[in-house]
Amino acid sequence: MTIFKKSLIYKIAGFFISLETKEILKRITETLEEIFNAERVSIFRKKEDRNYLEFYTFSRGEDELKKIKIELSKGIVGWVYKNNRPLIVNDVSKSKMFYKGVDELTGFKTNSILAFPLGLKKRRYGVVEIINKKDGKFKRKDLKICELISPFVAIALENAALFEKIEEMFFGMIRSFAKAVEAKDPYTSGHVERVENLSYLLAKKVGLKGNELKNAKIAGILHDIGKIGIPDEILKKPKKLTKEEYEIIKKHVLYAKEILEPISEMKDIIPAIYYHHERYDGKGYPEGKKGEEIPLLARIISIVDAFDAMASDRPYRKALSAKKNTKRVFKK
Amino acid sequence: MTIFKKSLIYKIAGFFISLETKEILKRITETLEEIFNAERVSIFRKKEDRNYLEFYTFSRGEDELKKIKIELSKGIVGWVYKNNRPLIVNDVSKSKMFYKGVDELTGFKTNSILAFPLGLKKRRYGVVEIINKKDGKFKRKDLKICELISPFVAIALENAALFEKIEEMFFGMIRSFAKAVEAKDPYTSGHVERVENLSYLLAKKVGLKGNELKNAKIAGILHDIGKIGIPDEILKKPKKLTKEEYEIIKKHVLYAKEILEPISEMKDIIPAIYYHHERYDGKGYPEGKKGEEIPLLARIISIVDAFDAMASDRPYRKALSAKKNTKRVFKK
Repeated sequence: MTIFKKSLIYKIAGFFISLETKEILKRITETLEEIFNAERVSIFRKKEDRNYLEFYTFSRGEDELKKIKIELSKGIVGWVYKNNRPLIVNDVSKSKMFYKGVDELTGFKTNSILAFPLGLKKRRYGVVEIINKKDGKFKRKDLKICELISPFVAIALENAALFEKIEEMFFGMIRSFAKAVEAKDPYTSGHVERVENLSYLLAKKVGLKGNELKNAKIAGILHDIGKIGIPDEILKKPKKLTKEEYEIIKKHVLYAKEILEPISEMKDIIPAIYYHHERYDGKGYPEGKKGEEIPLLARIISIVDAFDAMASDRPYRKALSAKKNTKRVFKK
Repeated sequence: MTIFKKSLIYKIAGFFISLETKEILKRITETLEEIFNAERVSIFRKKEDRNYLEFYTFSRGEDELKKIKIELSKGIVGWVYKNNRPLIVNDVSKSKMFYKGVDELTGFKTNSILAFPLGLKKRRYGVVEIINKKDGKFKRKDLKICELISPFVAIALENAALFEKIEEMFFGMIRSFAKAVEAKDPYTSGHVERVENLSYLLAKKVGLKGNELKNAKIAGILHDIGKIGIPDEILKKPKKLTKEEYEIIKKHVLYAKEILEPISEMKDIIPAIYYHHERYDGKGYPEGKKGEEIPLLARIISIVDAFDAMASDRPYRKALSAKKNTKRVFKK
């Protein structure tokens, strides 16, 4: 009968505390280094549509490793994947299977390896490699722990992939809708994409993190979504708008609010969009809010929106350069 | 030192194999019944904005239980929640804490209870109750297993909630966009919502399951999304359309395809929408496909779309009743 310590089980529980692949991979590699007292841990994955293994993560980041592709039956990793069995090599210098290329690339010296397949039922996801045990050799009983851990790693990564898939669907969908609305407005090609990226960068610059950064992206994508409620003849009018027509254009922030309000998860996004035409001096719309009364995310979108408008061509003027824009602002 | 069997750990792994709350709850209750050899398992949860516990699930479904609210410090469940400690009551008839109301409601006879709090770090989610051990009494060593399992249950349910939140965001967003597009078309109020619901029901009726059912809903919601590309003056024209205008209207299926194409996760949805104006006799558009050449989901949307159009008022006729529609079809 195989039995395990509670502390090990809690370490495994840590794999499931996030649904973000990056965070999960970090936890897995750190946990495995700790459990096996090893110098490094690498995870290789095989994507369904590829016929090679590639580096998925490694506990000490060498970015050049990402380029390496491993043939399915070559080397220790390839053998483990092909045979769907774990393998211990305590002195790689004596192993013909060991592929030296990675060490040559990174300058790292591999001594011992414990590698095991990552799998769940009939699916095989890749291979985990635990490298350089600090105290002595890898032993057969270590394989018991690998066998225990393998399906948990696979499930955690599979769940993260499922979560990311639906998150991608969400982002893909709002980007597509925003572009479809943008397509009605002849002056704004590519604007949505730039505002998404710049909002994210500016939000990062002012110190926002995690979900707030995500919200900056979402608000950036959706900031003009309310234009779907503006009649074509006003949106597409090539001449200067009348005062009445401009009042109608202004309603796009209200329409955006109405579109997003039924979605409870959007409650933090709505103010960022509803107030993105307010001005710091209080001369904006819809409410004439001033200074820090305007929500931070709305101020971010507002700056980025104005910047992109200035940096884009218009029928009546050429785009200003970022340098010129800056000068104009600071010379005032 | 506390140690556990591998088989127990694999049972726990089963909690993470899905991200659907319903499926996870089923696995948890079944697993706990098995581990403890108990007759029933109930899970109570405390929602963040409520000051009572409510039934979340129970291993043998009594729907009336759902209505029961449990005060936070009342009964065995309330005590366990309040004190954040497990409790064994091997003869409830001798316990003053035991609340008889549930047994009176269901006709079930509770004898023994092992209850433990569901928590993760500082958050408390609710209480698990294991009811009627079949062989003897609950013992102190059973509490070790509960302590081990509690954070796993909490993490599994938390991840499912996160997944469902983003899924809700996705559905909320596509519904809102579809309604915003619908708002441009004066004849179609409520059409999107009805097509979503009817597509789901018809898909279920013809035997679709799981993801296919979800796809039927998504395609139902988005079937007319391409109308965003149709100029207002044609979409809103109160008179009969010219042949040229009708050709433009027909392009909405192409526009929908263009909007959804950049989203790789939408690849199964696109044909359902692109072909929903094909006809079984080949006289539809855009390609004149016939019979079963038309994808099943597109045929479902097509039927539901036509049904809802017939069953709705138009400026030039009253809505037909479902009964009349049916007669007309079968009398032909």
